[in-house]
Amino acid sequence: MTSLRIIPLGGLGEVGKNMTVFELGDEIIVVDAGLAFPRDEHLGVDLVLPDFGYLEERAANIRAVVLTHGHEDHVGALPYLLREVRVPEVWATKLTLELVASKLDEHGLMRSTELRELVPEDGAVEIGRFRIEAIRMAHSIPDSVALVIESEAGRVVHTGDYKIDHTPVDGFKTDVGKLAEVGNRGVDLLLGDSTNAERPGVTQSERVVGEAFRQIIPARTGRVLISSFASNVHRMQQAIDVAVQVERKVAVVGRSLRKNINIARNLGYIDVPEDTMIRTQRIDEFRPHELMILCAGSQGEPVSALTRIAYNDHPAVKVERGDTVIISAKPIPGNELKIHDTINGLTKLGAEVLHEDNAPVHVSGHGKAEELRTILSLLRPRAVMPVHGEYRMLAAHARLAQEAGVPSDSIVIAENGSVVELTPGAPPRIVEHVEAGMTFVDGLGVGDVQDVALRDRRHLSEDGVLIVVATLATNGSVAAGPPELIARGFAETGPLLDEMREEARRVLDQCLADNVDEIKLLQEHLHDGIGQLVYDRTRRRPMILPVVIEV
Amino acid sequence: MTSLRIIPLGGLGEVGKNMTVFELGDEIIVVDAGLAFPRDEHLGVDLVLPDFGYLEERAANIRAVVLTHGHEDHVGALPYLLREVRVPEVWATKLTLELVASKLDEHGLMRSTELRELVPEDGAVEIGRFRIEAIRMAHSIPDSVALVIESEAGRVVHTGDYKIDHTPVDGFKTDVGKLAEVGNRGVDLLLGDSTNAERPGVTQSERVVGEAFRQIIPARTGRVLISSFASNVHRMQQAIDVAVQVERKVAVVGRSLRKNINIARNLGYIDVPEDTMIRTQRIDEFRPHELMILCAGSQGEPVSALTRIAYNDHPAVKVERGDTVIISAKPIPGNELKIHDTINGLTKLGAEVLHEDNAPVHVSGHGKAEELRTILSLLRPRAVMPVHGEYRMLAAHARLAQEAGVPSDSIVIAENGSVVELTPGAPPRIVEHVEAGMTFVDGLGVGDVQDVALRDRRHLSEDGVLIVVATLATNGSVAAGPPELIARGFAETGPLLDEMREEARRVLDQCLADNVDEIKLLQEHLHDGIGQLVYDRTRRRPMILPVVIEV
Repeated sequence: MTSLRIIPLGGLGEVGKNMTVFELGDEIIVVDAGLAFPRDEHLGVDLVLPDFGYLEERAANIRAVVLTHGHEDHVGALPYLLREVRVPEVWATKLTLELVASKLDEHGLMRSTELRELVPEDGAVEIGRFRIEAIRMAHSIPDSVALVIESEAGRVVHTGDYKIDHTPVDGFKTDVGKLAEVGNRGVDLLLGDSTNAERPGVTQSERVVGEAFRQIIPARTGRVLISSFASNVHRMQQAIDVAVQVERKVAVVGRSLRKNINIARNLGYIDVPEDTMIRTQRIDEFRPHELMILCAGSQGEPVSALTRIAYNDHPAVKVERGDTVIISAKPIPGNELKIHDTINGLTKLGAEVLHEDNAPVHVSGHGKAEELRTILSLLRPRAVMPVHGEYRMLAAHARLAQEAGVPSDSIVIAENGSVVELTPGAPPRIVEHVEAGMTFVDGLGVGDVQDVALRDRRHLSEDGVLIVVATLATNGSVAAGPPELIARGFAETGPLLDEMREEARRVLDQCLADNVDEIKLLQEHLHDGIGQLVYDRTRRRPMILPVVIEV
Repeated sequence: MTSLRIIPLGGLGEVGKNMTVFELGDEIIVVDAGLAFPRDEHLGVDLVLPDFGYLEERAANIRAVVLTHGHEDHVGALPYLLREVRVPEVWATKLTLELVASKLDEHGLMRSTELRELVPEDGAVEIGRFRIEAIRMAHSIPDSVALVIESEAGRVVHTGDYKIDHTPVDGFKTDVGKLAEVGNRGVDLLLGDSTNAERPGVTQSERVVGEAFRQIIPARTGRVLISSFASNVHRMQQAIDVAVQVERKVAVVGRSLRKNINIARNLGYIDVPEDTMIRTQRIDEFRPHELMILCAGSQGEPVSALTRIAYNDHPAVKVERGDTVIISAKPIPGNELKIHDTINGLTKLGAEVLHEDNAPVHVSGHGKAEELRTILSLLRPRAVMPVHGEYRMLAAHARLAQEAGVPSDSIVIAENGSVVELTPGAPPRIVEHVEAGMTFVDGLGVGDVQDVALRDRRHLSEDGVLIVVATLATNGSVAAGPPELIARGFAETGPLLDEMREEARRVLDQCLADNVDEIKLLQEHLHDGIGQLVYDRTRRRPMILPVVIEV
């Protein structure tokens, strides 16, 4: 009898958020292939990928990638994965598949895998020794699913990201009937979204936001701008519905937002009368009260449309007194200050800015504690492995599972890289740990910026850098010229620079007088002498790079 | 008849938060002298001071600094100000004065000014041509006051930071009676705290937190740790009261926290039975359920007690399963991720962590919209200048003032550096702008790190630095040796480094062949050639520093 090995591999501070490996003997399926966004300490890094090492070593075993929904943190790493390993099939629901196709197309990777549609209503598909069944779940992007992953090792349910919205905008509710049916069949292990496990109660329906739009927008006499996540198709639909009702034209500003809306329209996920949409270039033809502008930048991203509008620096859109800006999103932790700046800028221009704190213009896409309890009741799993969350959230989810009657020894809090083994008739347990670091994408480089480079960037960012260039006569006996000093990020000019130059000369003379002429030693003495001087004078520790050249 | 000039000078993104100048002819009083904490983009900066330039140019005119309360953002810049200009008197209430005295003592500045106690119950004091009267206001530190500033130009009220707490812990309520009396006398201009102007309703009483402590702590069987701002004396008192009741000993961890508690005890602002407090060294003598530990670090500061405890790296305090940590504070925007890390660390160690999101363990120190309306009703000011807040908050406060009947042309939204002129019988107006930049404190340096250095630090932090050292024979005709390259923060080793070295040599040879031998030009060519190569290969733009040496 073979055990199933479950290995969460991606997520920055979160477990199994971006990628989870399911391995049965020599067959692997990968659930999600998403990316994380760098934190402040990842200076200069653009994206953070899961660690593909485990998969690269077993590339021949990979049968498929199965995606739960189309958010970047669940699909964004797919192009990078496909460059490293051959993946025969990628399975996903319709919208997710289209979003992925457009992404692979941009990366020139359309021929590298076969895209296959997962239709929840069609029942299970067989992928090698796995049977995979999708269950519709409500979330902040349409076509999200949970996965039932069956194999000889047992029946595992992976919820993906979800909330239990009984009145979603697209009509695709969380399919509680099917969840109950799977629960009746018996669930050996539940991997459940823990994002809001700490929050009591129930997340409000997406419809609440539409209601707010219907209350707010008709009374407005200036422009209405709405900014949300580019993938929040329901949110766009609700905004557009109100625009149609009050006869405003809708312009879309921001490349990825426009792309997503186009894909969603083509698939019938967004319904807009043809003459409602206008091109950005035509904005000037309409008066403020005839316009609704959907724009990217709800996280205060420096080069996004909304940020440029807030600084009065957008080529097509301006904001003035009488306009209303609705920020229909929640700050991702770490983005708060940037969003505050955007709100201040827009307010200074005269706009009224509505956001989560002062109007009901956003709801979460993740279920809260009572919804997690509902899932536990419907599925009645024998064991639970909380995923998708920081440790504190996993711990809160574990408490909910315990309260729901799951025995403590059947609740596993794993970390990225933990190998959780599921064997029929036994509780799951962590049997080993594999490498699950982070891979940084910086410019074109994938994985070439590592901890040493980041540590150096951090050092440089704190106190700057000082370069000392000293030249020695070839016989190593005399300095061939005065040392050159270049400081950046501190003391770029001024008396300290002169003092450091004096110190460099002093150290050099002293070394030569003492017959210290090995270049490595000279560099060390320069480094230490100048470092001490700078520290004494300023309490700073710039990076000091001495170069000694024999000529 | 002389006009009063009011000039907000300090605050990072906030107006008049840290310092406001009141100038009447050749007499100046300064209200508050606080500092701001650097934002992420202020790489390596420790503190941000208000711009003292205006005061330095008029140093002989300064009569006094008057402080509204003892928080760092209102008193922390005083030592730096006293080093730059002579201030004959510093006025403040008892606790504020003691906190300031201890600060000046540390900076060796006790003899540089006269500290004078402001007693709200004693009525007005005369400072030159100003009459200053203090009114007790409730806030998150005891002994906070509003100031009534009277002169021939009119009667101005500056609220300081406040909430209207009818049941504060220290018995010093916001003195609504006196506010009403001042309102009856007639207020020409109100400078009012705008921090929570956007939030509807009323801030809860400090007593609510004590109630939460009384509910939470008695049931706990492990250690109880409580972390709050070091100056929140009421909060400490309420925690200590529960400790006494459940017979736990109290240890204080963190230098500034201990200092503040000592000052508050000596003045009678904290009441603790002698045998309740224990030294940190004695913690090991007690069992977990006999201990309450008050500790610094509620903002996730990297070297604070709570952070070290969360990483199991504190010499005296450890946390384990069964312990409870109460974070009795709100994240200052920008600190969210650090606090999340702390909570995750503590949860991993097994502690239950209670914080604002999951328990009523914190209330704000600033009044919300209804309290601002109450102040407007009590004072009925002829004109309003919202202060203490980002632009969006000032705008919200302005709306409240308008709704309260203050005419639009008598509401002034100023920026730092705006000179607001108040002349009897006329609405206040902005007449000019003076320099009001930020002064950075970095290590021992005050003001020596400026925008250029910060921009360079930012550049260095994004993509690192490359140093290219080339040597030329003195006649400038041949390269005297191969170029030396040092990369930090990118491509520190590997093929790209070799390729860049080749490019440097190629550029150099080309230049010499073309008879380009001016050092400045050679450096430019090296910079551009290598920069282009790096960008083509990596899409990165490290800082490139070429050094060409003639030998």
